Amino acid sequence: MSRVYNFSAGPACLPEEVLKEAQEDLMDYKGKGMSVMEMSHRSKMFDDIIKTAEKDIRDLMGIPDNYKVLFLQGGAYQQFAAIPMNMMNKHHKAGYILTGQWATKAYKEAKIYGDAVALASSEDKTYSYIPDCSDLPITDDMDYVYICQNNTIYGTKFPTLPNTKGVDLVADVSSMFLSEPVNVNDYAVIYGGVQKNVGPAGLVIDIIRDDLITDEVYPGTPTMLKWKTQADKDSLFNTPNCWAIYICGLVFKWLKKQGGLAVMKERNEKKAKVLYDFLDQSKLFHGTVEKGSRSLMNVPFVTGDKDMDAKFVAEAADAGLLNIKGHRTVGGMRASIYNAMPIEGVLKLVDFMSEFEKKNLK
Amino acid sequence: MSRVYNFSAGPACLPEEVLKEAQEDLMDYKGKGMSVMEMSHRSKMFDDIIKTAEKDIRDLMGIPDNYKVLFLQGGAYQQFAAIPMNMMNKHHKAGYILTGQWATKAYKEAKIYGDAVALASSEDKTYSYIPDCSDLPITDDMDYVYICQNNTIYGTKFPTLPNTKGVDLVADVSSMFLSEPVNVNDYAVIYGGVQKNVGPAGLVIDIIRDDLITDEVYPGTPTMLKWKTQADKDSLFNTPNCWAIYICGLVFKWLKKQGGLAVMKERNEKKAKVLYDFLDQSKLFHGTVEKGSRSLMNVPFVTGDKDMDAKFVAEAADAGLLNIKGHRTVGGMRASIYNAMPIEGVLKLVDFMSEFEKKNLK
Repeated sequence: MSRVYNFSAGPACLPEEVLKEAQEDLMDYKGKGMSVMEMSHRSKMFDDIIKTAEKDIRDLMGIPDNYKVLFLQGGAYQQFAAIPMNMMNKHHKAGYILTGQWATKAYKEAKIYGDAVALASSEDKTYSYIPDCSDLPITDDMDYVYICQNNTIYGTKFPTLPNTKGVDLVADVSSMFLSEPVNVNDYAVIYGGVQKNVGPAGLVIDIIRDDLITDEVYPGTPTMLKWKTQADKDSLFNTPNCWAIYICGLVFKWLKKQGGLAVMKERNEKKAKVLYDFLDQSKLFHGTVEKGSRSLMNVPFVTGDKDMDAKFVAEAADAGLLNIKGHRTVGGMRASIYNAMPIEGVLKLVDFMSEFEKKNLK
Repeated sequence: MSRVYNFSAGPACLPEEVLKEAQEDLMDYKGKGMSVMEMSHRSKMFDDIIKTAEKDIRDLMGIPDNYKVLFLQGGAYQQFAAIPMNMMNKHHKAGYILTGQWATKAYKEAKIYGDAVALASSEDKTYSYIPDCSDLPITDDMDYVYICQNNTIYGTKFPTLPNTKGVDLVADVSSMFLSEPVNVNDYAVIYGGVQKNVGPAGLVIDIIRDDLITDEVYPGTPTMLKWKTQADKDSLFNTPNCWAIYICGLVFKWLKKQGGLAVMKERNEKKAKVLYDFLDQSKLFHGTVEKGSRSLMNVPFVTGDKDMDAKFVAEAADAGLLNIKGHRTVGGMRASIYNAMPIEGVLKLVDFMSEFEKKNLK
């Protein structure tokens, strides 16, 4: 089979150029006589890989010098604990904006470590919108305000960052990581699992303002969850996920070659527009998200008929459009159109939807 | 450059057959049109990969049905916390046998969560031997006894398991994982990072007797460090390190094809004997470990002259014998001769040592 168009929400498609380079170098990295998988994490070879990866993500995102970049394990879920363990250290209180399952899981985990306060929620409408965040009940005694900026399952994205009234902002950006420029200074911590928009599973990247990296952590914090442990050792306190760091490094190079995050944003807007424009005029399919809260990355849609949805998912797969089934809590379909999804994939999907509509609209 | 002989202590060499298969399938896994790195961890394809990997390691090690196999992130170091968090739940006390840096780090981490008692130590002679463990001060109120069964840095291995007087035994087997048959029933928990003898970095495999998987964990245990979290979801509570699980699965198949762990033990004994026999008659090089405590996997040796050691390491590298430098705490050299190191590599090393000795022995 030739390569398919893979609309998976994550792990998800990677740039073909990156995969080709990884394939060529798999047995013998740049003439070094060994695979990246076989390299000591203390070797000069791997040191070049991780240092270059860090430099490139700093360039891409414009990360200021007073922010540390950490390459960690355990996924975003482990950070759901690490964030309060490392940050709820002044008032033991933080505000959470509940825009989906992941934000809610982060909120519940934080409750183990302190007073996590729900500031707003869009649960009333199956998280299909982002609440108004211009004047939330944020108080000075909150150690931080937490958001999941793009919600993979529900296909929403914060149209603007919340007004945190001067409180530090922490954002999980897993499903929009490197999809558009961000102003890192707007955040205290910006972090995400890489397995959606950046690289293979098993790596989370934390970008943390350095004054937040401290010994003042929750009592009983495991050494591995204390940010300072890895910050002091440039993510090499113990053996990291070397392969994932290597692949992410290749993706960073690829992104630079494409023109950086401003270019990616243009492309992602263009791809999303193709799909949303089709949905907005379709008589069979419709999007599930309020227009002002739409994600550029994850586009859920339904026909309103479960059997029709299932038929569409099956026929799309036969046509090489894979992993288009929606999350069970939303139903229907979801197309994740991350950086590595070419516009050709989106155009093919829309053509297929259009044909399907003609055949199936009664 | 052609492939080198890589004596790294970890991440370390992998079987060439495994790397070749991974390379062939990198862009398009078994005609599925995508890389393993691009597969949803919830897909049928990945489910086959992880289920087959589990079945194969169960076959290889003869893991009884009442043991769970977990594929986790964070390395052995994270388990240094997870073990007391999950197991110090009756008497909040455990015994540790200190045979090297890693056992000592595990011991220090356990002290955060309860009364960790040092039962024995070989620190007096730079951990160059395994203490007599036939009658240690183990008491009934210890929740477990902990060992690091093979000590990567110092090149020692427990000649027999300690007499734990009926207390549950927990063993870190990272640097001897799958190198020889074990009787899993002798252990309550047997675990290790895979990046030494099994696969790429970023994955730790825990084999845990199922009565130890419980909700009775240390207060404030992060959800991700509670074994029950992953046990209840067959290691798919969140996105695991899919690529590492895939590569380990290929290594398990390779081990079965070689004839299983009994055959690997024979081979490993043969390889180690070649090196130890040479060391025992050499007038320039000598091993640093007491004979009864020698590891089959990690063989440290010195000339007794730092400049001579450095010269040897440099010349060996030029001859394609890489990563032979010893750990800074032992000095000299260390050859890690894991499962994937062919006997040809060891023979080449010994030939090289022999030639070097002829040229340099005054």
